[in-house]
Amino acid sequence: MQQNQGDTSLPDFFMTADYLKRRKTVAAQMKSRGLDGLLVTNRANWFYLSGFTGESGGMIVTVDTTILITDARFSLQAKQETHGVKIQLQKGLLYPALGQFLRREKLGKVGFDPRQLTVAECQAVRKGAGTNCKTVEAQGIVEGLRRRKDAGELAVMRKAAVLADAVMERAIKMLRPGMRESEVAAEIEYHMRKLGASGPAFETIVASGTRAALPHARPTAKRLRKNELVVLDLGVILGNYCSDMTRTVCLGRAPGRVRSWYTAVQEAQAAGVAAVQAGASCGQVDAATREVLKKSRLEQYFVHSTGHGLGLEVHEEPRVARGQEFRLESGNVITVEPGVYVEGIGGIRIEDDVAVSAKGSEVLTRLKRDLIEL
Amino acid sequence: MQQNQGDTSLPDFFMTADYLKRRKTVAAQMKSRGLDGLLVTNRANWFYLSGFTGESGGMIVTVDTTILITDARFSLQAKQETHGVKIQLQKGLLYPALGQFLRREKLGKVGFDPRQLTVAECQAVRKGAGTNCKTVEAQGIVEGLRRRKDAGELAVMRKAAVLADAVMERAIKMLRPGMRESEVAAEIEYHMRKLGASGPAFETIVASGTRAALPHARPTAKRLRKNELVVLDLGVILGNYCSDMTRTVCLGRAPGRVRSWYTAVQEAQAAGVAAVQAGASCGQVDAATREVLKKSRLEQYFVHSTGHGLGLEVHEEPRVARGQEFRLESGNVITVEPGVYVEGIGGIRIEDDVAVSAKGSEVLTRLKRDLIEL
Repeated sequence: MQQNQGDTSLPDFFMTADYLKRRKTVAAQMKSRGLDGLLVTNRANWFYLSGFTGESGGMIVTVDTTILITDARFSLQAKQETHGVKIQLQKGLLYPALGQFLRREKLGKVGFDPRQLTVAECQAVRKGAGTNCKTVEAQGIVEGLRRRKDAGELAVMRKAAVLADAVMERAIKMLRPGMRESEVAAEIEYHMRKLGASGPAFETIVASGTRAALPHARPTAKRLRKNELVVLDLGVILGNYCSDMTRTVCLGRAPGRVRSWYTAVQEAQAAGVAAVQAGASCGQVDAATREVLKKSRLEQYFVHSTGHGLGLEVHEEPRVARGQEFRLESGNVITVEPGVYVEGIGGIRIEDDVAVSAKGSEVLTRLKRDLIEL
Repeated sequence: MQQNQGDTSLPDFFMTADYLKRRKTVAAQMKSRGLDGLLVTNRANWFYLSGFTGESGGMIVTVDTTILITDARFSLQAKQETHGVKIQLQKGLLYPALGQFLRREKLGKVGFDPRQLTVAECQAVRKGAGTNCKTVEAQGIVEGLRRRKDAGELAVMRKAAVLADAVMERAIKMLRPGMRESEVAAEIEYHMRKLGASGPAFETIVASGTRAALPHARPTAKRLRKNELVVLDLGVILGNYCSDMTRTVCLGRAPGRVRSWYTAVQEAQAAGVAAVQAGASCGQVDAATREVLKKSRLEQYFVHSTGHGLGLEVHEEPRVARGQEFRLESGNVITVEPGVYVEGIGGIRIEDDVAVSAKGSEVLTRLKRDLIEL
């Protein structure tokens, strides 16, 4: 029997009003930057502004209208998924077509995000647009909005986190020496879909033994063995939003050294979560985890940043890394995921998703974090 | 019981020699273009040249050496996976670091692919490289090599195709009215991993009823119903190479009209496959499928191109579309996948992977293509 919490159960009517509001906010920001149009070429961004889930297309937001240009594979889908957006069938290649649209509409100054357009795509747009249209860099307008999740988004992200909890809990119960990493990953991704996820938010990480020292190991045919550490890093997509969590399990009794590493990571993670609040900088959250590991002389084994923003994309703004000055605001959702990685021995990482709230923070993933010895 | 045909069973020693040979070919092409270095920023490309499967990094090929710059999450993995490549630990952000490397090494003229670098990344590289290093566009050097699969690659792609066949066959047997599209997709992706795939090559398409008229529909919670058409489009990644195939099934007896559409698509697909041979242009393969559908007055329902190149990426060179002049060569692998899509009714698509051989072609996916009525 399935508990299907699939996309279709999400309140569509609610989101429709949201999309309109978001496009109006974008238009207001464009106006203040003197732009007649904004080119939106990132899938998460056009979904955020319209609900379109297609894989290819381009959106142009002008001060009073929004146009989505997509090819025949997606045009029917675009009509079904969007409201208040003009759908235009793309003729020829995408980026020349976007440029030609700008020319036809006589838009004078159009912004694009230099992080979202390749050099070749930018050239094609400019060639199509001609010399009367000035295309200028306008970075992060939509990403800036996406950082602050509204109530509807947070509701979906809570569900995505709870679903990750359930998948993780089952995965941990399932671990046995002799299973292959790839087999564990297959079971995890199967179970998340059975529970209603549209899929994994990223390739599930199952890293055992010395492979656990690779922070981003892809699952291999290696079999789990007794007395190994196993890092499980998984996330689901539910209603287009991502979750992302990590737990580390010991297949047997952990030796004293591993136990002390685990305690340090757990304390570092708790310190990071405790540092999350409106007004704190991302650098402060990073420093909070790093400080604990430093006290345990494990700082050199923590080889990545503390976390990242989470939402429609599994890695989005803000970055939670050393020195990052962005100050957290209510509605931001970030991961807190310190770890230690010791070459030739293994690794430990603990990761939760944390939303910044008016009162402090809300930890969305709730599965307990104590050392599990199977 | 699992038939595990996982990545680890692939002949590593063979590939090591291959990587070296490929880097030498790239170096020779650079030399003929007057380049001192080539920046490789695409994951499939750096894998092709070194075997590195990490998700973040950048490679610089010079005339006599290859350097891979990656961050601490991937540096150990890079050491384990590559041979004859210098691994450098990335300090700070990736693109400035790549630029600074070019400056330090005093490389005078370095090529980059304008399709593989965003405007912002290109700016960061140029800023880091300084004024003594000239970065110039050099498009498709590695992609050009990747188009022609060598014997080792073809051996892996045959396995990936056979695996897709097995997954498709099981999926068709499993279809029942009442199942959800998302559930069918979950079973398909679970089964492919159980059979040794490292994962799906793309999000599996299960499109039923009127949703089958959307060529790229994502699976939803919709349940399959009797007398509906179901389009199944799936592919696996095996040993880093992709397969991609489509079959269309009728859940019940197909009415005469649907039957005649199916026959037309099947004939169009066979005509496309028959057109594949060294020396034929991609446009000719596209025209071959389109011609058959035209005779059946279905041309306007065939809303996409006939196919695409396949390899380390699920969409790569060459494009198999109207007017494409690229002439097929032995070693190219392409998909042939005509379809008809009728709004409000449904859709039919049949897709196989075809390798161009010295003697003509070799169809890698072999599951039969006749109309299946369940």
